[in-house]
Amino acid sequence: MNKYKIELFGNIWIKKNGKNFIGKGRIELLEKIGKTGSIAKAARSMGMSYKAAWDAVDIMNKLSSKPLVIKKSGGKDGGGTILTDSGRDTISKFKSIEAKNRKFLDQINIDIEL
Amino acid sequence: MNKYKIELFGNIWIKKNGKNFIGKGRIELLEKIGKTGSIAKAARSMGMSYKAAWDAVDIMNKLSSKPLVIKKSGGKDGGGTILTDSGRDTISKFKSIEAKNRKFLDQINIDIEL
Repeated sequence: MNKYKIELFGNIWIKKNGKNFIGKGRIELLEKIGKTGSIAKAARSMGMSYKAAWDAVDIMNKLSSKPLVIKKSGGKDGGGTILTDSGRDTISKFKSIEAKNRKFLDQINIDIEL
Repeated sequence: MNKYKIELFGNIWIKKNGKNFIGKGRIELLEKIGKTGSIAKAARSMGMSYKAAWDAVDIMNKLSSKPLVIKKSGGKDGGGTILTDSGRDTISKFKSIEAKNRKFLDQINIDIEL
């Protein structure tokens, strides 16, 4: 008899050389940078300071062989910040791992009814 | 070619009726209560306030059919707080789910080298 609605949640993150590389928040930041073309706009939409967002991007870039985010200067739009192919790949790989983990957790029987 | 040491981490937690029931921290609290026989001592050893620890215990007890922690009054030791069988079962079930998840994450290929 199960009186309660029981749900199992999980979170994942990846470290490189012992340093936080990506997790849910940074992936969201990368996605928003890709959408807005601006670290400042992405930061604002997440309630982060520009500095925190910039630092996060800098750490991710430094921990990657190829940068995930680059500054693009000039052009008719006056430049901006863009997500590279590596950035897009990183997002999609993280999301695929997250989805696998979610699927795995859904299969676990949480019979904690004591 | 893998220049970096890449590691995948995961965290799990369980909600009951939409409320946080147990996670890593609360399980540690239950274990310390079991070991010390005291909410105050368990709280102190985790750097938590007594109130925060008491509130956490209260929430867990209220979300369970049988309490996980009970006050034992009297006796030659002057009473104290003990972990019930339900408390011990909850710890071991959570840890078993955590171990399964860890094993699953270990099998995932994290080929994020971009």
